[in-house]
Amino acid sequence: MGKGRVTLPVEEGLEKEISHIADKWGADAVRDSDGTKIPEEVKSIADKVYSKYFFTRGDQEWAKANLDELQHIYLMSEAVTAKSEEVTIPILKGYFDQQVQPDTDHDPKQWWEVINRTTGKAVSPEQWSYDTETQEVILKNANKWHCYTVNFLAYQIWDPVHMYNHITNNWDTEHHLPYDPRYPKTREYILERLRNWLDDHPDTDVVRITTFFYNFTLVFNDLAEERYVDWLGYSTTVSPLALKEFEKEKGYKLRPEDLVDEGYYNSPFRIPSRQFLDWMDFQQKFVSELAKECVDIIHSYGKEAMMFLGDHWAGTEPYGKYFKNIGLDAVVGSVGDGTTLRMISDIPHVKYTEGRFLPYFFPDTFKEGGKPVEEANQNWMQARRAILRSPIQRMGYGGYLSLALDFPEFVERVEEITDEFRKIHDYSKGTASYKAPFKVAILNSWGKTKTWMSHHVHHAIWYKQVYSYYGILESLSGMPVDVEFISFEDIKHHGIPEDIGVIINAGDAGTAWSGGAAWKDEKVVSTLREWIDAGGGFIGAGEPTAMEHQGAFFQLADVLGVQKEIGFSLSLDKYNTLHEGSHFITEEHNGPIDFGESMKYVYQSDRNTEVLAMEEGDVTLAAHQFGHGRSVYMAGLPYSPENTRLLLRAIFWAASQESLMKNWYTTNIQTECAAYPEAGMFVIINNSYEQEETSVYKEDGSKVDVTLAPMGYKWMEI
Amino acid sequence: MGKGRVTLPVEEGLEKEISHIADKWGADAVRDSDGTKIPEEVKSIADKVYSKYFFTRGDQEWAKANLDELQHIYLMSEAVTAKSEEVTIPILKGYFDQQVQPDTDHDPKQWWEVINRTTGKAVSPEQWSYDTETQEVILKNANKWHCYTVNFLAYQIWDPVHMYNHITNNWDTEHHLPYDPRYPKTREYILERLRNWLDDHPDTDVVRITTFFYNFTLVFNDLAEERYVDWLGYSTTVSPLALKEFEKEKGYKLRPEDLVDEGYYNSPFRIPSRQFLDWMDFQQKFVSELAKECVDIIHSYGKEAMMFLGDHWAGTEPYGKYFKNIGLDAVVGSVGDGTTLRMISDIPHVKYTEGRFLPYFFPDTFKEGGKPVEEANQNWMQARRAILRSPIQRMGYGGYLSLALDFPEFVERVEEITDEFRKIHDYSKGTASYKAPFKVAILNSWGKTKTWMSHHVHHAIWYKQVYSYYGILESLSGMPVDVEFISFEDIKHHGIPEDIGVIINAGDAGTAWSGGAAWKDEKVVSTLREWIDAGGGFIGAGEPTAMEHQGAFFQLADVLGVQKEIGFSLSLDKYNTLHEGSHFITEEHNGPIDFGESMKYVYQSDRNTEVLAMEEGDVTLAAHQFGHGRSVYMAGLPYSPENTRLLLRAIFWAASQESLMKNWYTTNIQTECAAYPEAGMFVIINNSYEQEETSVYKEDGSKVDVTLAPMGYKWMEI
Repeated sequence: MGKGRVTLPVEEGLEKEISHIADKWGADAVRDSDGTKIPEEVKSIADKVYSKYFFTRGDQEWAKANLDELQHIYLMSEAVTAKSEEVTIPILKGYFDQQVQPDTDHDPKQWWEVINRTTGKAVSPEQWSYDTETQEVILKNANKWHCYTVNFLAYQIWDPVHMYNHITNNWDTEHHLPYDPRYPKTREYILERLRNWLDDHPDTDVVRITTFFYNFTLVFNDLAEERYVDWLGYSTTVSPLALKEFEKEKGYKLRPEDLVDEGYYNSPFRIPSRQFLDWMDFQQKFVSELAKECVDIIHSYGKEAMMFLGDHWAGTEPYGKYFKNIGLDAVVGSVGDGTTLRMISDIPHVKYTEGRFLPYFFPDTFKEGGKPVEEANQNWMQARRAILRSPIQRMGYGGYLSLALDFPEFVERVEEITDEFRKIHDYSKGTASYKAPFKVAILNSWGKTKTWMSHHVHHAIWYKQVYSYYGILESLSGMPVDVEFISFEDIKHHGIPEDIGVIINAGDAGTAWSGGAAWKDEKVVSTLREWIDAGGGFIGAGEPTAMEHQGAFFQLADVLGVQKEIGFSLSLDKYNTLHEGSHFITEEHNGPIDFGESMKYVYQSDRNTEVLAMEEGDVTLAAHQFGHGRSVYMAGLPYSPENTRLLLRAIFWAASQESLMKNWYTTNIQTECAAYPEAGMFVIINNSYEQEETSVYKEDGSKVDVTLAPMGYKWMEI
Repeated sequence: MGKGRVTLPVEEGLEKEISHIADKWGADAVRDSDGTKIPEEVKSIADKVYSKYFFTRGDQEWAKANLDELQHIYLMSEAVTAKSEEVTIPILKGYFDQQVQPDTDHDPKQWWEVINRTTGKAVSPEQWSYDTETQEVILKNANKWHCYTVNFLAYQIWDPVHMYNHITNNWDTEHHLPYDPRYPKTREYILERLRNWLDDHPDTDVVRITTFFYNFTLVFNDLAEERYVDWLGYSTTVSPLALKEFEKEKGYKLRPEDLVDEGYYNSPFRIPSRQFLDWMDFQQKFVSELAKECVDIIHSYGKEAMMFLGDHWAGTEPYGKYFKNIGLDAVVGSVGDGTTLRMISDIPHVKYTEGRFLPYFFPDTFKEGGKPVEEANQNWMQARRAILRSPIQRMGYGGYLSLALDFPEFVERVEEITDEFRKIHDYSKGTASYKAPFKVAILNSWGKTKTWMSHHVHHAIWYKQVYSYYGILESLSGMPVDVEFISFEDIKHHGIPEDIGVIINAGDAGTAWSGGAAWKDEKVVSTLREWIDAGGGFIGAGEPTAMEHQGAFFQLADVLGVQKEIGFSLSLDKYNTLHEGSHFITEEHNGPIDFGESMKYVYQSDRNTEVLAMEEGDVTLAAHQFGHGRSVYMAGLPYSPENTRLLLRAIFWAASQESLMKNWYTTNIQTECAAYPEAGMFVIINNSYEQEETSVYKEDGSKVDVTLAPMGYKWMEI
């Protein structure tokens, strides 16, 4: 069934099996994993050999010889309530002493901050001292009954990913210390070591960089459990040196608090401060410049540079303004679903992208009673939709092949999946799939930088507070629409791009995804209103446009036709009235709609609003005309085939383009169709575990009937 | 079975039946209702005759002759989005033109305000004009795509209560115009008319004032439906004259916006502004002074003055600082439940209080298929608990007796209830019931002024956003604890009174009940922390101490041991761990606890917190030690016998007084006991519709077993 586009994780001792599996799955590349080596014999059967490379923890001898050049992190102590005027704050309380160590090489009085969290004011350094023995800050003349925290700088004495793998897999090896290339000596060494490594690895075709220099924020607690994880975090990028250079470059000094951010550590859910945006910019520039040097060296050896999306990727921002300068050949990332697939496949300025599919060949799944086939099916079905709209060029797996070999059904299923993956490329011939003639934009505080990354805490991990919004991304990831991520700043300074038909604002009030104070900005609301009035479409989910201001919580209630009661207007009578008769948006929906965590207390604020769904008296779905434009409110939208169809309909309705929806449209909501007009082919996929019958509306209006096997697909000529 | 303490509504044409019923129910007083007269013959059978009296709508000839002295109201137009630089705002849109009429006698340029709700700024009067013909404000040079509202002054051309009765009962009579005693001429006339009326009513013993001068806020919409209702509102107290006098008295000028309050009209759910507090004070003073004059006149005729708690009661604030000056003999109010009973029975500075029980003898209940007995039972059972802790002296009914007579079972049941009511007084002999040796305080932005009125939109009416907090009041209303209402200002300026054992803070974030920015006040949080640390008890419900500030949403998370995730700290891992084994608070609870609307996303922020209940992974009930004090968090507490017991236990646990709970304590949670040590009696009541067996722990530790009929009671000697 052909060969290629597939990367196989290999290990020593499995030489015979590897050859068989490579054949079966059509693998043309092999890779090592943490703790494995590629057997010599295997290299010959592959077109390409990938070798992992760690920039900042690959050489522990270097780390140990240069302990003053270890990476740092800013942490906030737990808050302590002052029960007397002298307060003792054990700064490491709740932290893992094997992971972090307070840095006293740099004067705490200069680099730390004790903050009165009751008043928000920093305490004068003269009022406190640090006891290195007890690891406590002693604060004098405290305000009794106020709360205090310490922002302190610590060395990272265990690389977070190494620590995670170590603890999770019960390894017992030396802890990797991460070193910081911000220091000139270490920087120089990193480049030199790369050259040496390249000299030593003539068989390597692709240097798989995992990743560059600074790990996302991953902090453990004193019970060696995860305490804090932010996949998009920058906490580990700090150092006194970096802060000094920041001051030189940006012309002002950052406070520890700018990075500690009240203990929220500038989570992407926070509306970013100017200081943090400057810090990101500063580090992205640094990372991209040094990364470019590394990539240039790799290229000079005739090898490809492939970056892993994750791990030490802070500062690489694939959708940021410096990424293109790095000059990478490829990005590989873990595919958790359609959204993370698109996060990889949409990355610009690389020759190709590769997805690492689930499940990893790890003992958590590949054990007695494990269900690797189920995991693979779910993963493939969600990713497949996204691939059809924006393909990754390659796929692969991770972990230990020996484990997978014990599950023959899994081996068979992967054979089918890899075949199906190659067929997509064979039939689509690298051409673009059919898309609606207008774009959909996700509007939030971050915009393009966090393309496909909104509502993300950790890689594709379910959070109760997030899935009802994340479902919108996931639905979009496989929809026949182009998706763009725009920010309030974009709107303020550049208006709304011509090709956008529908703007979506989704999130909880106050978060960066909803937008908070941006909704008090007159330019933002005026620009949006004008655009919608002229025919634009607006979809709000959860608490869109939310900012309590001048008698309104949803600032665009005039557009949305709904408002949320937050307790100040209970005296106002609410007359929520369900729309009678059918509506374009809900036409295909039977039974109650799943709004996930949903949203309470939203009410109809305009008699003309068409309320399409209510839960316990509150509005959960509504449609509203605003001038020539339209808006849709939804209380939430977890991912499902049913909700994907609902969103598709909401988008076409909001765009006032209902008549265009039935191009390459399937009548059965469990199925979807992707067409490749230039290639003359289209494919219908079944997103369910049942056999499904469906009709497809072609662009010329004709219909084709198809029966699809569970999870099946069918390619046809246009 | 005795006689007295009961007031009967009577009407002409029922002379014979009245005598029979008065006998049966032991009525010693008769009253008229809206639209009825007391038959002459009946007056002799009663000890007292109550006559209703309307101060500001009793004489429509006066009203019509003095249209310039009608009462006013400030209203806000609906918001209009400026789609061009000239904006037309139809100010009456959505209002009922039979209720209000824009006042153009007073210069709109001076007394109205056009506000840009996008920027929050008032528009210069030069930019707009008002067209009396079309009732539109025309705004020029508007900022396109901004939203605008008009705060306008209107005459009330239909008294709200008269309008309500009219529309609800389909009456077809002349609309009552309310006149404003702020005007000297009307004021003088009101006093004169009162004298005349008293001259004309020699048989009247009690003047039932319904009520003084200004009705609570009740505004209808253009479909003649209720649009806005605030039982505690002051919107109708305004007038140009009052505003001018305010300026003189308080030394500064109010803006229309101070009263319109972004369209929230200073709802009691809003944290009150200084301006609104000043306005309330100003009007309370005026109302109490004039009311005193009226009461003095009534007294000079040898009659009693009884105020109805409701209707035109704005400014009378029975728990306010001027109420005692009025010199009323009595207050009568409608009893919706235990909370509204206490709202009446706790009123100081009157000789007695009277409750008007449900159901009203109105055709909505007293019709075929109506269930007046069920309504009476529910009403009585909730009120009875409260009466045992703080008695009203009299009870009565309202409406049209003729309707009730068609329901003989109801007549029988009322006989039982009136007997039971008299027994309470006979056995308790006017002595106080046993209470815990510490007080419980409800802490909010209003404190004492809104005693038993927190979480109140309209009289005892269920609101989805309210019942989960209101249940705390309702549970407390019949609990053996003294309850006080205190404000943040009290705490700031006077500390926490010695006799308080437990403080409760309950409400949604940002509302006056939770407290909003008060929780950023260092004095408030410090005082509370110190007090709790020294042994005080704190109970938080819903979003207590909530104000996002310096990395915390619940500001007293250190006390509560729980925090709420509002989206900024999703990266922080949550380890909610259910407490193992039994706990004092939940000892008597079987099965899941009903937290009502409950609260999402609350998590354990301290490992020492005892998590007693969780819903879908979130903490809904938790206990926590703080120094020598204790705190309890609960996600909500709708009223039920089960939840009353839970709250009782939470209170004694928080107060660290578990050992004192079992005084006059019943083992069956469907029952409660009230003891009157001075009278040597105690009573056990059954709050359920089933027969119940229970044991009572007496103060000496001995136990008595009792079996109670459904809804039954039993008096015993101590």
